[in-house]
Amino acid sequence: MNLALLGTGFMGFPMARRLCEAGHTVSVWNRTREKALPLQAFGARVHETAAGAVAQADIVISLLESGPIVESVLFGDAGAARAMRAGTLVVDMASIKPREARDHAARLGTLGVSHLDAPVSGGTVGAEQGTLVIMVGGKAADFERSAPVFRAFGRATHVGPHGSGQLTKLANQMIVGITIGAVAEALLLCEKGGAHMDKVKEAITGGFADSRILQLHGQRMIDRDFTPRGRMSVQLKDLRNVLATAEEIGFSAPITQRFEQLYAEAVDHGLADLDHSGLFVEIASRNGMQ
Amino acid sequence: MNLALLGTGFMGFPMARRLCEAGHTVSVWNRTREKALPLQAFGARVHETAAGAVAQADIVISLLESGPIVESVLFGDAGAARAMRAGTLVVDMASIKPREARDHAARLGTLGVSHLDAPVSGGTVGAEQGTLVIMVGGKAADFERSAPVFRAFGRATHVGPHGSGQLTKLANQMIVGITIGAVAEALLLCEKGGAHMDKVKEAITGGFADSRILQLHGQRMIDRDFTPRGRMSVQLKDLRNVLATAEEIGFSAPITQRFEQLYAEAVDHGLADLDHSGLFVEIASRNGMQ
Repeated sequence: MNLALLGTGFMGFPMARRLCEAGHTVSVWNRTREKALPLQAFGARVHETAAGAVAQADIVISLLESGPIVESVLFGDAGAARAMRAGTLVVDMASIKPREARDHAARLGTLGVSHLDAPVSGGTVGAEQGTLVIMVGGKAADFERSAPVFRAFGRATHVGPHGSGQLTKLANQMIVGITIGAVAEALLLCEKGGAHMDKVKEAITGGFADSRILQLHGQRMIDRDFTPRGRMSVQLKDLRNVLATAEEIGFSAPITQRFEQLYAEAVDHGLADLDHSGLFVEIASRNGMQ
Repeated sequence: MNLALLGTGFMGFPMARRLCEAGHTVSVWNRTREKALPLQAFGARVHETAAGAVAQADIVISLLESGPIVESVLFGDAGAARAMRAGTLVVDMASIKPREARDHAARLGTLGVSHLDAPVSGGTVGAEQGTLVIMVGGKAADFERSAPVFRAFGRATHVGPHGSGQLTKLANQMIVGITIGAVAEALLLCEKGGAHMDKVKEAITGGFADSRILQLHGQRMIDRDFTPRGRMSVQLKDLRNVLATAEEIGFSAPITQRFEQLYAEAVDHGLADLDHSGLFVEIASRNGMQ
């Protein structure tokens, strides 16, 4: 299969490499071309323009960093969309707004080009190891067609029509941000009351309160290690995207609202660049704890 | 080891049976004696009074249903505490307030009787199968002494001094109640936006948003099956115990406060007897969804 991949950043680079290693013909483009060049060693062809990269592609994988950038690359002056053959499928695997994804799908549709929104969870490690969780919105036939691509990256699930993948990614981020708060407040309550946080985590592991967040982010709280993997500022942006999307579709999200306030206050207090488990620091400092 | 178990209700009955099956000498007492009688078939001796049951015991396991009931059985007119030999250890495995547990430990201490607070998570199924999570507060030596008892029930962790077990149980209930809210609001957002809830759950399984709550309670939401295992009214009571305990120890818990309001509103709206995953129904009905 002829594949193109646009955007060889911290996610796109290892993903392009996995496609090469899976035996696909891969054309790549990146705004800063130098960052893409090392992919030549894996067999990728590095193009000067996005239009050049996509011209022969059956499937175009986008890992550009925001909705407006996707729009400018696809539909701007040197637009890549017009360079695509009819029947091409664009799979946007970056996290952008559900509304933007639906808009891109509609505009590509008028050119005879299909679209899937397929954001991922699992970070750079998941991208390198092929263990990403992929949340896919769009048509079932396009999802089937993309199976060989998704197989190189991780586990994909088709969740609904255009925009549903992005919506599911937002739901994922909501659950992550709220569960971090639950774990932080619970561990701090125990510590304030004289229990040992590490023992509390050990005790409740395996019970109903157990979660990936308890295991990963709970451990970061116990270790007071807030080296950023996902930043507080990004968690806040995600929750604001949830609320903006909720408003667009007429959905009331009282829990997310409360957490948007908490993360915003934490960012106001100078915690923007901590890992999102740093909500622990905000709740601790409200309680005169460290 | 000579054991006594007080309170053979829905948790105490299967736990007494497991102690018998593990080869211990077990004396039991229950306010309604008839409910304890079937334990004779497993080798337990059923006593007329709590004082009679505990007189020869090395360890007394309490599964009475509230702090005031524990207090009346131990310290009331026909008080069991005075019937115990010096050196006896009382292990209270019911969920009562941390303050009550510390008070019982102090009062028993004046009689030369030791105390552990050791509430459990895992319900009747965990009690029957010996897979309970046991959160233990008290002295390390008493924790060691109780190992054969805990081994019959599940996995025990010593989390800190007197009261810490109850505090950890509250922390467990906080995390459960808050994570239920996160999953409910996230699944409903997706459904409102056109995604399929069951597919959303499938997609995010295995990622950072995964949890026991997503798997168990998320499935109940998808199935709209709110047959009570843990009731909304009990979840609300647990959160109120968290807030009361937080106030006692001077801890500010802004997240738990918000959830206490949400569960209280749900109970006001007639949802008291649903499973606690029924917070989904409250958020759905605010959004005109079912």
